[in-house]
Amino acid sequence: MRILGIDPGSNATGYGVLDREDGQLRHVAHGVLRPRPGAALPQRLATLVQGLEEVLTAHRPDAVAVEQVFVSASPRSALVLGQARGAVLAVLGAAGLHVAEYGARTIKQCVAGDGSADKRAVQRMVRRSLELDRTPANDAADALAAAICHAHRGRLAALGVGAYRDRRRRGGSGSWVVRRAR
Amino acid sequence: MRILGIDPGSNATGYGVLDREDGQLRHVAHGVLRPRPGAALPQRLATLVQGLEEVLTAHRPDAVAVEQVFVSASPRSALVLGQARGAVLAVLGAAGLHVAEYGARTIKQCVAGDGSADKRAVQRMVRRSLELDRTPANDAADALAAAICHAHRGRLAALGVGAYRDRRRRGGSGSWVVRRAR
Repeated sequence: MRILGIDPGSNATGYGVLDREDGQLRHVAHGVLRPRPGAALPQRLATLVQGLEEVLTAHRPDAVAVEQVFVSASPRSALVLGQARGAVLAVLGAAGLHVAEYGARTIKQCVAGDGSADKRAVQRMVRRSLELDRTPANDAADALAAAICHAHRGRLAALGVGAYRDRRRRGGSGSWVVRRAR
Repeated sequence: MRILGIDPGSNATGYGVLDREDGQLRHVAHGVLRPRPGAALPQRLATLVQGLEEVLTAHRPDAVAVEQVFVSASPRSALVLGQARGAVLAVLGAAGLHVAEYGARTIKQCVAGDGSADKRAVQRMVRRSLELDRTPANDAADALAAAICHAHRGRLAALGVGAYRDRRRRGGSGSWVVRRAR
């Protein structure tokens, strides 16, 4: 099973590809798509779409994982992020891919064992769990982290294990608890 | 000169096509793209993109006009609108089209002579100025209005006339004033 993780952004969209085989994760590729900063928005989004289409053609993923948007930012930044996200999701939809979404806390919990891990901790843990020679750039690390999270949850599901968010703990700030499905 | 106006939305995206010839406007086509409501977002955006690509293939516009987003809505609705808008703009960028953006007040002023005209007044004036047999649906009327606005401003520019927003009037709420360019 080949999983593509994406971290959409208008200036930089990270992607990461990995394979899950017999419960093991294997790194395939990662990178950051950066449209030319000076170009008009439609051209930048078109460049982003083209880059993503090349990633899909090169790696042919079976599943895609994207970080859920945490909408507490300003309407202006929600619009800007939404535009990049919409361009990305349309390409994935056209390719007939199912897109799984995970909250930022869930992804950090999956990768670093701590829902409030900082960016450097995520980068370090992504590097370690995929045995990379170098620490991936921020956006690519976030994309790989989303893919790892999807692989991990798929593995748990295969084992008959479910995960739920324990809202009773610490005033609902949320930690993930793994339990056997009934 | 063939102008495409678009009113992007996640549930309904209006479009309208018109020709400007010798200062006259001629209606070509209009409609509303409505992705299947129950489908997942990536599939709905892909349907929207496909519909828009068919409009571009059928009508081959020279220019595109889109309403500027008025970002005072909630971050959630800005995200939702941004996603539809991003999918649309990426298609236009990939087609090499320049996208002109106009504020809602400017468009209403162009079409209905009143920056605070309501939706029905815009629909009525769009119908009248393009001599349509029927009143176009809301989203299509807004798209045609953006196209009319672009055609109108192109005509003014050809006459050597500029437009500026007179911020001194009524506490900067803004009305449009046409004057000869110096």
